[in-house]
This record gives sequence, structure tokens and C-alpha cells, in this order.
Amino acid sequence: MTEDTFFAQLFATLPAPPDALTVPPGDDCAAIDLGGGRLLLVAADQVVGNRHYLAGTTSPEAVGRKLLARNLSDIAAMGGVPRYCLTTLALPPERDAAWMLRLLAGITDLAAGFGVYMIGGDIARTASEEVASLTILGEVRRENLRRRGGGQAGDVILATGRFGDSLASGHHLGFSPRIAEGAWLGAQPATSAMIDVSDGLVIDLWRLAAKSGARAVLDTARIPRRTAATTLRQALTDGEDYELLVSARPDKVDYILGQWPFATTELTVVGRLEAGSAEVVDAQGKSLLAGGHCGYDHLERG
Amino acid sequence: MTEDTFFAQLFATLPAPPDALTVPPGDDCAAIDLGGGRLLLVAADQVVGNRHYLAGTTSPEAVGRKLLARNLSDIAAMGGVPRYCLTTLALPPERDAAWMLRLLAGITDLAAGFGVYMIGGDIARTASEEVASLTILGEVRRENLRRRGGGQAGDVILATGRFGDSLASGHHLGFSPRIAEGAWLGAQPATSAMIDVSDGLVIDLWRLAAKSGARAVLDTARIPRRTAATTLRQALTDGEDYELLVSARPDKVDYILGQWPFATTELTVVGRLEAGSAEVVDAQGKSLLAGGHCGYDHLERG
Repeated sequence: MTEDTFFAQLFATLPAPPDALTVPPGDDCAAIDLGGGRLLLVAADQVVGNRHYLAGTTSPEAVGRKLLARNLSDIAAMGGVPRYCLTTLALPPERDAAWMLRLLAGITDLAAGFGVYMIGGDIARTASEEVASLTILGEVRRENLRRRGGGQAGDVILATGRFGDSLASGHHLGFSPRIAEGAWLGAQPATSAMIDVSDGLVIDLWRLAAKSGARAVLDTARIPRRTAATTLRQALTDGEDYELLVSARPDKVDYILGQWPFATTELTVVGRLEAGSAEVVDAQGKSLLAGGHCGYDHLERG
Repeated sequence: MTEDTFFAQLFATLPAPPDALTVPPGDDCAAIDLGGGRLLLVAADQVVGNRHYLAGTTSPEAVGRKLLARNLSDIAAMGGVPRYCLTTLALPPERDAAWMLRLLAGITDLAAGFGVYMIGGDIARTASEEVASLTILGEVRRENLRRRGGGQAGDVILATGRFGDSLASGHHLGFSPRIAEGAWLGAQPATSAMIDVSDGLVIDLWRLAAKSGARAVLDTARIPRRTAATTLRQALTDGEDYELLVSARPDKVDYILGQWPFATTELTVVGRLEAGSAEVVDAQGKSLLAGGHCGYDHLERG
């Protein structure tokens, strides 16, 4: 069972969602209607020692930074801006108050750069393992909201940044969440669907395609790779890229590329959506999902 | 260092909070102004295996139920009603999908009874320990919001329910969060401050008194005890009672007691606030904080 199917099974057992829940579970964030065209975005994510970072090697500041940055990436994927966060820490006795304050400083230093304010949390003790969980609250105008399922056949797929080799390169700790880029893309009327790449380019593109009721064609020759990502497979499946995939109407792609205001963030056409059942194929029509190793699943392997 | 002083130290390092943050960290929930007199309440709390429950003995349903119930108690303490929750689970490989669904069913079964809807979360793997974190979102009208710091000298202190022996009696797993009671108390114009008793009657009353700039006198003879709480000390310090302490104007206490609509929940006068520095004393003026064992601190002992 994958995390996707697990959550699908869970949420199928719940009663009908409240009317105010504009985006139910299954996107990067849930969205709650606040009235007046404002939506509250909410998501939660966590890091576990020796799973998402090396306990005892990675600095506590870097752990905290990564924890917040992962959540910011989910807000970016909805076209929103982040506002507040809450953090719970479950840590062994040797992680003293000074160490915890360093971890929290890793969060609050990055938070300050994005106008995010920490409003609560909890601390508990484990025997030996380290778990840190963070909930992010953000906001988006209804017309700027982008979901995984907004794409349609014919749309072009664009990607921010580069892919592959996130772990070895340290990108997974030091990446810049694409908040400004996501907000800009959400404000373009021609964009239709968006997702962030956390588990892997192919698996997250598959999620966008599946929710959009389409099949995705990935032009594998055009995928920008990080310097040390020497193989295509690294770019397709490494994960932890925290880049955005966005679909857009084909007649507006040149406009979007021409207006793109972020000089230090690449925006690249990497594929398209076409009619068909949920799949990701290369330009020759060969499935990129086959083999079951298309990305990182936190329930199976994480 | 206690959890209180730790968080005070952390939040002192943060920039000035945004204007919309009506209640900054330091209460049971933070509150964000949504406009039109509506406040969003947010809090996060967690349970750790072999710390808050016996891993392998407590049923997963009971673990999930307790996790949500603790958070509901924080909403109750602000006079609010709960709306949504998010859950992150960090669990060892032997906790399979069926076990996780049972834990989540413990959450969603209790949630359904309070109109709470689960809107997101994350699952990750640990080596051997179990950590579950939950963020609760709720709502309260501005005029019904009650904080820890609203009390003043002369106010009478009332308590819901009974105290002591929560662990041995199983109350800590099966308690009924005081949502309806808290909302009713928040809607009484004569109530001034409110807090839930999670760490212990004396320590949580001290928190209310300290934030209210007053000293609390506890009439120890009048504290209702659970059946098996045979000593006063158990009622004062056991913790995990998840009852409410509320202060009220003395001339309205008879009215509140007379109008109290909850036949199965006791409401008892247990003390008063008086002028003085933050302290909790008994009717003879003897400190109940002395000895440093006045309650449960999750950073020192939890």
C-alpha cells in the first residue's frame, strides 16, 4: 500500500466534508473558505532523524530549516503565501534546551524571510529518536488557487529549477522554497494545475496527471538536471527537488516564459498533458512509471 | 528549564507578531483575526509511545482518541468550537496500514461527534518509536474568547468535573473534552479567564493567575476528586484531568451556577483570585507550589 492509496482509503471513510472546505485532502494543502474570496491554506509535514536527515551530523538549524522549507513548498504549490506555523518536537533527553532553540532558530530564521510567524507547538520526550512536525497556515485569493487536478489535455507542463541529486548535493537542506514563483504562476490566468516535486519528478507529475484526468508526456531530453545528476534516472526519481510543476494553456506558454520575472530560477517546458488514462510516458510513449521505482513513497520506503 | 520558560525564551526572540494575531503564543491556542468578529483558533499537541500511552498495550483507537481529545480541550479552554484537524504519524515498520487506520479511526470517530473534519497529514517511518502529532483548528466569536490572562483580583475560580487519578482510572484515555461547557462559559459575560487542566490543577491555576497578574487561593477542601483519588495531593498534581478552570465576577457566580445546563458535568467553586504576585496558596495562605512538584512539565519530566 502506498501513502496515496492509504490516504485515499482513509478519507473515503469520512463523512462528507464541510461546505467551507474548498480543497479537501489530496492536494498539497487543504483550503478553507474564509469568505470574501480569501482561502486559508493548511498542510502538515514532518522530519525524522536518520530518515530525513542524519541525526547527530546534520546541524539542528539545518533540520529546522528543512522542516519549514518542505511545508513552504506545499503552500507554493497552491499559489499561496505562508503566514503562520506551529511546531511539535519529540526528542530524546540528550537534546537539551540549547539544541532545541537552535532547531527552532533554523525554522524562525527562514520564517522571517517569508513573513511567517511561529504561533505555537509542543515539546515531548522520546527514548532515543527524533521527530519534528510542522503545520503551515497560508492564504491565497480564490482566483489564484491552483490545484493538482486543474489541468486538461493539450496543456503544456513547465518546471521550475533543476532536478536530481538533491541528497548528495545538499539541496534537500538548503533549497529556496518557490513561494514567489508559485504565487506568480497562480496569478497567471493561463495556468491550470500545479504541484511541488517532493517525492520525485515522475511520481509527482503522475499525481498531477491523475487528478487532472489526463496522461502526461515528459520530454526527458529537456529536463534540467543539477550538476551532479549525471543520469536521467536521477532527475526522474531522486525526489526532494522541491520544484514546481505547472500546467498552462499552450497558446499562453510563450507569454508566460517571456514575462517570467525570476532571473535566478529557470522555467522550462518539460512536457504536456494529453487525453488518456493516468500515466507518465516519454516522447516515444514508453511508460516511466513501470518498475515501481518511480519515486519516493514515505509509507513504503520513507 | 521548564516548558513555560523555554517557550517564553523562544518567543522573546521573534519579531513583533502580525496585527492579525489576536492571541500570540502562551495561551491554550493562538487566535488569528479573520475579520467580522471571527477568530481562528489553532493549537498543536502530540502523544509519544511509552510516554503518553503504553506502546503495544493501549489500543491504536485509544491512542488516536486521546491525541484528538487533548487538542479539543485546548479549543474548549478558549471558549471555541473545533472545526478541522491535521495529523502526522511517525511509526516503526511493524505498525502496518491496518494499525494506522485504527489509530486514525480513533481520531475520526471522536471528531465526528464534535463536527471536526480531518483535512491532512503525513506519515513517516521511525526505527522503533511512536510519535503522533495533531494540529487543531477552531473558531470563536471575539466576544466569547477567554484567555488565561483575563482574570482580576476578586474573581471567583470555578472548575468543571473532578480531579486526580487520571492515569490509573483510565480517564486520560476516555475523557470527554469540555467543548460544550467551554463554549457556554465563554458566552457568559461575567467570565474573565479560562484554562484547561492538563499538567495539574495547581500548575495550571498558577498559569491562569500569573497571566492575570494575581495570586490564586485554592479552597482545597472543596476540590471534587475522582473516586480513586484518595489524597488531596493526587487531585492537586496528577494532571491529565482535561477539566476547565474559569474565573468569574463574584456577583455573577450564583447566576452562573444556577444557569449551568450540563447535568452530567459538575461545576464547583474552588477558589478565588486576589491581589498579589503569581502564586497558588491554600485557604491558610500556604504555598501549594513549594517543592517544585506541583504538576507535570513535559520538558522536564514528559
